[in-house]
Amino acid sequence: MKDEFEFIDQIKPASHHQPSLVMGIGDDAAVYTSTQGMREVVCVDTMIEGVHFTKETLSPNQIGRKALAINVSDLAAMGAVPRFYLVSIAIPAVWEDEEVNDLYKGMQEVADRWKMDLIGGDTVSAKEALVITVTAIGQVEEGVSLYRSQAAPGDIVFVTGPVGSSAAGLELLLEKGRHASFNKSESELVLMHQQPEPQVEAGRLCAGTQARMSLNDISDGVASEASELAVASEVSITLQADKIPFHPALDEVVKGQEKKLAFAFNGGEDFQLIGTIEKTAFSSFLENALRAGIQIYPIGEVKEKAEHPVFIKDKDLIEPLQKGGFNHFKK
Amino acid sequence: MKDEFEFIDQIKPASHHQPSLVMGIGDDAAVYTSTQGMREVVCVDTMIEGVHFTKETLSPNQIGRKALAINVSDLAAMGAVPRFYLVSIAIPAVWEDEEVNDLYKGMQEVADRWKMDLIGGDTVSAKEALVITVTAIGQVEEGVSLYRSQAAPGDIVFVTGPVGSSAAGLELLLEKGRHASFNKSESELVLMHQQPEPQVEAGRLCAGTQARMSLNDISDGVASEASELAVASEVSITLQADKIPFHPALDEVVKGQEKKLAFAFNGGEDFQLIGTIEKTAFSSFLENALRAGIQIYPIGEVKEKAEHPVFIKDKDLIEPLQKGGFNHFKK
Repeated sequence: MKDEFEFIDQIKPASHHQPSLVMGIGDDAAVYTSTQGMREVVCVDTMIEGVHFTKETLSPNQIGRKALAINVSDLAAMGAVPRFYLVSIAIPAVWEDEEVNDLYKGMQEVADRWKMDLIGGDTVSAKEALVITVTAIGQVEEGVSLYRSQAAPGDIVFVTGPVGSSAAGLELLLEKGRHASFNKSESELVLMHQQPEPQVEAGRLCAGTQARMSLNDISDGVASEASELAVASEVSITLQADKIPFHPALDEVVKGQEKKLAFAFNGGEDFQLIGTIEKTAFSSFLENALRAGIQIYPIGEVKEKAEHPVFIKDKDLIEPLQKGGFNHFKK
Repeated sequence: MKDEFEFIDQIKPASHHQPSLVMGIGDDAAVYTSTQGMREVVCVDTMIEGVHFTKETLSPNQIGRKALAINVSDLAAMGAVPRFYLVSIAIPAVWEDEEVNDLYKGMQEVADRWKMDLIGGDTVSAKEALVITVTAIGQVEEGVSLYRSQAAPGDIVFVTGPVGSSAAGLELLLEKGRHASFNKSESELVLMHQQPEPQVEAGRLCAGTQARMSLNDISDGVASEASELAVASEVSITLQADKIPFHPALDEVVKGQEKKLAFAFNGGEDFQLIGTIEKTAFSSFLENALRAGIQIYPIGEVKEKAEHPVFIKDKDLIEPLQKGGFNHFKK
């Protein structure tokens, strides 16, 4: 590993996107100006080698991309515009300088996409596993509240895109490793695991909607995220099995509805958004989405609080859907 | 380890200090309102078990205290008022629930002292060593700029309190372990290592000073921090050996000026502030400090850029002071 000061000089961006940045990397703390009429939105997430990824499933570049993307996804779920990020990284001696550079490049690629500036961080040496913690900061208009607690009976449950792809991609990677040869559809699934796209535009669409809405990003699988919405809102949610959207590549690679549903419900890291919206506002929400080129898929309905937070309905069968516990329908 | 959701419920504060907090723990990201006329100040720091601390030198409570304090110290060095913090923690299986609770309690004790609210975080399992990353957020008035780059020849160099105590305390801990019996002065040094006090009030005093000023917190030893100021400002700094302030307990435990200076220059984690101020403003700065009950110690002078960033002067001897490299004066 290089000298810490050399390293900081190297990752320090030559220019920045955000004109509101007053002091970036190079002092005790970063300083920036907030925007009138906007609130600050901030989150943090950690990825650990051997727990959240291995070099067998993600390249260093992809580890960097993902470490930032999971945080951008959290900002998206609040309807926020991403602005800044800070990176704290613990690097074991076995990591080559070039791999660490690739990791930072991966973050920067995601950052440039959303005009985010790297404004601080910390670099330390680790004994064993690489640990990367990213803090992301964004802003959202005062009055926007896309909180988990805002679902009410009668609302429509929606997702912003296909789900289950990332989990299917991970299964392929765990089976074969990332250097294996995959067919076209398999490669698509693998890439959806390795380089998930945070749904910032969809989050902004939701932020611009006047209706009462709740919103969550899908990092832990649809069952878990729907459950969070239901519990926080003190309601129950019934999902329609046949409405869950799948990517064509998932249809191609995975035969059998139940296995695809298992990926969608139990798997995670799709980084689509799941939300609820009052029924009367749904059609104009759909129209706005269409105009913005964003797909919205209704997948269920909010009901009164029940003995379980989430149910799954398939034809005439209704069953409780446990977090991470979807296996198959009892017939 | 408990279920993650139970754990989050447990650390979620029942009330908060900051009325500007809109959404704390419990959604995808935290949301707060910035204050008109103030800028946002943010920093992040990581501590790793076995690298930055062990259970032999710090209790779980003290690990928590320190993890937050090092960040509060960075905010102080920008003249900021602390407001919020986020905690990302990777916990190995060998850590007991009670130890983790004590660690969070330690953070909360520091947080309550500064009226900071815990507003987010991430909890993951680690394989081997505990890793704790704290993001701290504060605010400072527009127009305040206590940056490292603002020193100029003729300025007076000052510190806000005794230095070297933390390093001396660490040496005692590494020799004997924290459960050993120490005499009164030794115990004071040990405590100054284990529970350093960030100098928020001194930082605010500096923020209120109209004069041109540079400021840094002393996390890596006076030699290193003075060097950062000198390099960033393209000047050199000459420190007076006989002006470096020591705590009475350090005078008591460590005999010999040179060893005390070595602790001050090479040791770290005193979390006092080191800064420079234009000469003409120094006496009124001192008066204001006195009124606020804050000690300010002049320890040297800023000079033109030279072949080394920092020099140490002892009587008639002047020598370059290397980062971490102070041994003794060549006689």
